[in-house]
Amino acid sequence: MALNQTQLLSKMVIGDGHGESSPYFDGWKAYDENPFHPTHNPNGVIQMGLAENQLTSDLVEDWILRNPEASICTPEGIYDFRAIANFQDYHGLPEFRNAVAKFMARTRGNRVTFDPDRIVMSGGATGAHEVTTFCLADPGDAFLVPIPYYPGFDRDLRWRTGVQLIPVMCDSSNNFKLTKQALEEAYKKGKEDNTRVKGLLITNPSNPLGTVMDRNTLRMVVSFINEKRIHLVCDEIYAATVFSHPGFISIAEILEEDTDIEGDRNLVHIVYSLSKDMGFPGFRVGIIYSYNDAVVHCARKMSSFGLVSTQTQHLLASMLNDDEFVERFLAESAKRVGQRFRVFTGGLAKLGIKCLQSNAGLFVWMDLRHLVKKPTLESEMELWKVIIHEVKINVSPGSSFHCTEPGWFRVCYANMDDMAVQIALQRIRTFVVQNKDVMVPNKKHCWHSNLRLSLKTRRFDEVMMSPHSPIPQSPLVKATI
Amino acid sequence: MALNQTQLLSKMVIGDGHGESSPYFDGWKAYDENPFHPTHNPNGVIQMGLAENQLTSDLVEDWILRNPEASICTPEGIYDFRAIANFQDYHGLPEFRNAVAKFMARTRGNRVTFDPDRIVMSGGATGAHEVTTFCLADPGDAFLVPIPYYPGFDRDLRWRTGVQLIPVMCDSSNNFKLTKQALEEAYKKGKEDNTRVKGLLITNPSNPLGTVMDRNTLRMVVSFINEKRIHLVCDEIYAATVFSHPGFISIAEILEEDTDIEGDRNLVHIVYSLSKDMGFPGFRVGIIYSYNDAVVHCARKMSSFGLVSTQTQHLLASMLNDDEFVERFLAESAKRVGQRFRVFTGGLAKLGIKCLQSNAGLFVWMDLRHLVKKPTLESEMELWKVIIHEVKINVSPGSSFHCTEPGWFRVCYANMDDMAVQIALQRIRTFVVQNKDVMVPNKKHCWHSNLRLSLKTRRFDEVMMSPHSPIPQSPLVKATI
Repeated sequence: MALNQTQLLSKMVIGDGHGESSPYFDGWKAYDENPFHPTHNPNGVIQMGLAENQLTSDLVEDWILRNPEASICTPEGIYDFRAIANFQDYHGLPEFRNAVAKFMARTRGNRVTFDPDRIVMSGGATGAHEVTTFCLADPGDAFLVPIPYYPGFDRDLRWRTGVQLIPVMCDSSNNFKLTKQALEEAYKKGKEDNTRVKGLLITNPSNPLGTVMDRNTLRMVVSFINEKRIHLVCDEIYAATVFSHPGFISIAEILEEDTDIEGDRNLVHIVYSLSKDMGFPGFRVGIIYSYNDAVVHCARKMSSFGLVSTQTQHLLASMLNDDEFVERFLAESAKRVGQRFRVFTGGLAKLGIKCLQSNAGLFVWMDLRHLVKKPTLESEMELWKVIIHEVKINVSPGSSFHCTEPGWFRVCYANMDDMAVQIALQRIRTFVVQNKDVMVPNKKHCWHSNLRLSLKTRRFDEVMMSPHSPIPQSPLVKATI
Repeated sequence: MALNQTQLLSKMVIGDGHGESSPYFDGWKAYDENPFHPTHNPNGVIQMGLAENQLTSDLVEDWILRNPEASICTPEGIYDFRAIANFQDYHGLPEFRNAVAKFMARTRGNRVTFDPDRIVMSGGATGAHEVTTFCLADPGDAFLVPIPYYPGFDRDLRWRTGVQLIPVMCDSSNNFKLTKQALEEAYKKGKEDNTRVKGLLITNPSNPLGTVMDRNTLRMVVSFINEKRIHLVCDEIYAATVFSHPGFISIAEILEEDTDIEGDRNLVHIVYSLSKDMGFPGFRVGIIYSYNDAVVHCARKMSSFGLVSTQTQHLLASMLNDDEFVERFLAESAKRVGQRFRVFTGGLAKLGIKCLQSNAGLFVWMDLRHLVKKPTLESEMELWKVIIHEVKINVSPGSSFHCTEPGWFRVCYANMDDMAVQIALQRIRTFVVQNKDVMVPNKKHCWHSNLRLSLKTRRFDEVMMSPHSPIPQSPLVKATI
């Protein structure tokens, strides 16, 4: 950029605080340039970097057709058009807030209740995190965030707020579990750097780990933030993706039920969204639920910058208020996510690839530590480049989640149909077969040095997927499918 | 707020930078507490503080019923549900961007074109202004803004960005026209305060004046910002509300057609919205159109905080792409706004109340200078309190628009039906009749000191509007209706 421009624009335009230069987003670009399609582009990149839930759209479509009055664009619902199109109160439609509060309770097993008057809208979880940060911290202040963490947090919490993130170390030695010691160390580091630590951000269920926090850890977290008098922001946007035991425990449950914990509710704030649990990322429904009146008040004013379209509020108010539908949807959704998880991780296991044990999220934390040449992040990136450019799957390297242990990758599995999953597994199999000498888990070894060449000479997609030739399925392929 | 809380939260929560304590918003609250309804609450406050366009909903409703495939919630459109609900690319749906670019050209007489690749989404014009400011200025920098200006700008441009606004003086001596001299003085003031002036914000058509800028003024503005090397942000959200000559001239037209103006396009940015021109404030469609590549790029990243719901994008893509509909809608909309303007200002004129001559917006700039006790803002507020609490109309005092000349009020007239307008005029008439001794325009005089009492003893609504008694219309009433 010319010096002239540099002087004219803000530092944000000039800088790279957005964090889009991360391989997390680079992978998306690689996918965008050559996206897989079963017939139009069978050799394209399969997008496994997107934590999207496409497994339940049919349930929603069915509901919509049975409830035409829920939309302002049908003969049955048009009578509400005028009022809805014109409604711009930042409190949101009362029926929307009520329905969201009820849905939040249900996705937490109805063991807790949420007050509709504390429901604040925002532009997705992205907007919710930024608004919450603007309310809790001033520029230069810091939040503690356990690693690995969602790459978007660098944008959401830091970029326009000027707030810093201090990583809290978690690693595979205890399955990436958050410990008191790690929290203390991160807090101490902030103090040593003369940074005002204002809060702790956790994701539960975890993105990218897919794990849920146990009750003891949550209690420890609540004790910790009370002891330090800092805020706790709980990102619970994957609440309804938990598909097996142990069940999900919301921070709300700890606050409501654990009478033996002395805690100040004013310090606790939940970020929620319908992007993952309902599979509506396009609808941009973010929710801030704060137990702090001043934060509710201020966040609501800030919500003017990212309100939910009333067309969408109106539709979801009806949908989420239909108890019978919600009950069936949540049960079926968890079932389908679990099935997909078992198919995918089962397929990987047969290839000798392990994942961190998990039971939530729309992804797995895949362990390829035995495939990185050296235990460095550079080697992880080399492997990632092979995976995206040669294996043609977009997965996200651990380093983009600030993981310090090379060789972990987040792989999303719910944003595609069954066939795409099988093709992805086939591609991984081919990769594994061609590198079988190194595929001994936990044996530190390099991937085959002429992998690039060998893949180029035998493009498995061309053999396996060409519509012009019969697919010569090997016994191995059959075994996996 | 307890000291404890003060330390825990951000300065934004503690401060009042949002500007919600303005009478502009206070008036809304007074309305909210006692809203007028023709049958349920005929003595309630009539909301004339909301620049909303409710005159054309029937045209849109009609289109929606004739185009069921445009919605993802109809049997005809459900097939797109999955793809639309899941679409989260911050570039927006290509068909949406194309349709908006086309619509923007049409609302500017098709004398200019807009590049769909420069269309950036945001959460309403509110979000658009904040994003643009974040891109153009750093905390402490300043924007020049001609007064009177929309009260929301204090929130949108200043609050979270830390940017300052320097007023550019405009007054009734030349019908509030923006002059080079006033711009120079404001710029000089910024320099004297050691503030880095980064841009100029104009609204055209003007909110709150309802006037359009002439070609010479626009040329002067372009020369000025180029001379100073500062940005120009043009808020053109009322483009399609112009109902009579002179027609609207977009800044885009000056850039495209005026070859004799040496100008750097990189300095010019347009904020647009569908809240006013289409009457969809609830849908939260804000648009940033920048001629500067770096700003487009950065603003698009920032749009993640306030994307338009894809449900809404999808519907509007079809609607705005229907040339025949748009043509008819725009013509009919301008016609209806013009009719309403004439009815309302005609009614006021018969009562001896003048407004600034205007031909756009959804409001008039009403001149009550002869009714303020003293030429002070305190007196203006006294009069405003009488208007809202006794006359029971929520209008917005000039001071909330940072107008320095006491006695001007913005009155919105397009957010209600014909009957509500007549009731508002009746209320004003009663007020005028009871204060007829002071109703000689331009004669500095006070309003009747026992007005409060007199209104209480004879509540005109109760007489005029009670469903239990026939309405005793006076000849004056008939003459006005």
